[in-house]
Amino acid sequence: MKKLINRVEDVVKEELEGVVAAHSDLVRVHFAPNYVVRADAPVSGKTAIISGGGSGHEPMHGGFVGMGMLDGACPGEVFTSPTPDQILEATKAVSGGAGVLHIVKNYTGDILNFEMAADLAKADGIEVEAVVINDDVAVQDSLYTAGRRGVGATVLAEKVCGAAAEAHRSLKDVAELCRRVNANGRSMGMALTSCTVPAAGKPTFELGEQEMEIGIGIHGEPGRERRALASADEIVEALTKPIVEDLPFKRGDSVLAFVNSMGGTPLIELYIVYRALARYLDGVGVKIDRRLIGPYITSLEMAGCSITLLRLDDEMTKLWDAPVNTPGLRWGV
Amino acid sequence: MKKLINRVEDVVKEELEGVVAAHSDLVRVHFAPNYVVRADAPVSGKTAIISGGGSGHEPMHGGFVGMGMLDGACPGEVFTSPTPDQILEATKAVSGGAGVLHIVKNYTGDILNFEMAADLAKADGIEVEAVVINDDVAVQDSLYTAGRRGVGATVLAEKVCGAAAEAHRSLKDVAELCRRVNANGRSMGMALTSCTVPAAGKPTFELGEQEMEIGIGIHGEPGRERRALASADEIVEALTKPIVEDLPFKRGDSVLAFVNSMGGTPLIELYIVYRALARYLDGVGVKIDRRLIGPYITSLEMAGCSITLLRLDDEMTKLWDAPVNTPGLRWGV
Repeated sequence: MKKLINRVEDVVKEELEGVVAAHSDLVRVHFAPNYVVRADAPVSGKTAIISGGGSGHEPMHGGFVGMGMLDGACPGEVFTSPTPDQILEATKAVSGGAGVLHIVKNYTGDILNFEMAADLAKADGIEVEAVVINDDVAVQDSLYTAGRRGVGATVLAEKVCGAAAEAHRSLKDVAELCRRVNANGRSMGMALTSCTVPAAGKPTFELGEQEMEIGIGIHGEPGRERRALASADEIVEALTKPIVEDLPFKRGDSVLAFVNSMGGTPLIELYIVYRALARYLDGVGVKIDRRLIGPYITSLEMAGCSITLLRLDDEMTKLWDAPVNTPGLRWGV
Repeated sequence: MKKLINRVEDVVKEELEGVVAAHSDLVRVHFAPNYVVRADAPVSGKTAIISGGGSGHEPMHGGFVGMGMLDGACPGEVFTSPTPDQILEATKAVSGGAGVLHIVKNYTGDILNFEMAADLAKADGIEVEAVVINDDVAVQDSLYTAGRRGVGATVLAEKVCGAAAEAHRSLKDVAELCRRVNANGRSMGMALTSCTVPAAGKPTFELGEQEMEIGIGIHGEPGRERRALASADEIVEALTKPIVEDLPFKRGDSVLAFVNSMGGTPLIELYIVYRALARYLDGVGVKIDRRLIGPYITSLEMAGCSITLLRLDDEMTKLWDAPVNTPGLRWGV
């Protein structure tokens, strides 16, 4: 295992120490239990938004804490759900009296622990709504999931809902918007290589030199099929066709196109993927109105990419364009 | 070779097609010869700035074209210098009558071709100044270099000088500032793995499962030494001590700390590196006033990192903070 780390037990703690050393103007970090909150939390009278899940997907979620996006994030150990007490503490730390939205990716452990934390927070008098993201069209049930996995649409939901919460929209409104983003977002990913969980010390799965996995999950869960390596254009079609057909995205739709690196794939390749995606969508009459290209929801150092399409309406577009100031996403500030 | 590409001959062309498909609001791309210019080029009466070099280091340089940074970039083939005619055409395309600054990384081919292009541009009546960046403390002469290599300080010089040019400072002023950034910037990198140049189809060099290369160049050129894999803290010390001693950075200095991914190293590890760097600098009394963390000057999919320190003064800090709007760096707009 080749990684820039110290002891494997300290990976998450030291990463968070790095985040707060770098970004104390934007965020505060609490340790044991671990959570990240925006530097000015709690913001009185504002709907607060929390997300969380296993670590290993950076910048998601801790890197998305700050003005215009998340109020807090609960990073679990690598690829491990955060605990209920961790989520509860974070919920309390960001609560500004207007309720707290939990954005939860659809993994069984995450769902259970966020539900437990929500119940405890409600018992403490904090209003909580939860929205589950399940945008991955690759497989119906998965290794850690009943139903579809939550992947790239989570990043987009956090940005769009964060902007709405920043405008002091109500918890009910922001939760409704989050459901709308999820309902209009679809994703699929692929891997050229496995990743290695530090505590495991060896690759999560094996892929031959001429193989790739289509429909991979962000923890290396099996996808739709393992097949021979293909060209970028063919890979993009294999990911995009099922996405487009699933919603379905229709001729005349405007979308946000999100081309994501799984961690080990560099930008030069992502732009070749984006080129193929733009051509494919042009061919089916879907218009790209906004885009996000880079490593935003990663699987450690896995090589590969994912594609997320979000059907936009005017409101979502405006919220996407709104200023944001987080370690991982920043514009207009 | 596992990459998200189509034909190896088309990598650079298709990457540029992806860039312009994604960012036509920010940049225009000219093909054959290939160059990227800001969408509003030429900006009349403004000092223009061009950089360039081999492709494979994305987002550098094409991703840094836009308001507040570069006016143009000349991407060569992967790890190959741009040609004189390519640089000349780009110089003409951005010239707004106030002269053009060439920011050149110190590689023999780049130097020769930028010089030739500058001579031709001058013959056409365009005032050109060139500044050579040579911030890499790892080795004195290298595979492609007489003297030190130009690496991470290039990104910082492009941002700082871009802000100065945006404020309509003169060519002479901006060139002087660029020399000051170079004089106050020092870098060193390391690799956990090699990268694979698409046209070569196999890794540039071999590293054992328990080995790393300290002082690596951004094209995989040999560094100071190949040694046994070590902890992130030890690696950071091995990179930072020579950087600090070289300038030297002194107790009380304020710096911009730039922790860069070579392409295949994900953010979770970069923050562990940043944590170690912050501790090391704290120990020698150097204060981090600004920072940049992410993949900004990459070597295809190489795993590893580099560290750049830039000693700041008030002027550089203000220019660093100024708004920038490019595909690869964006804030305050």
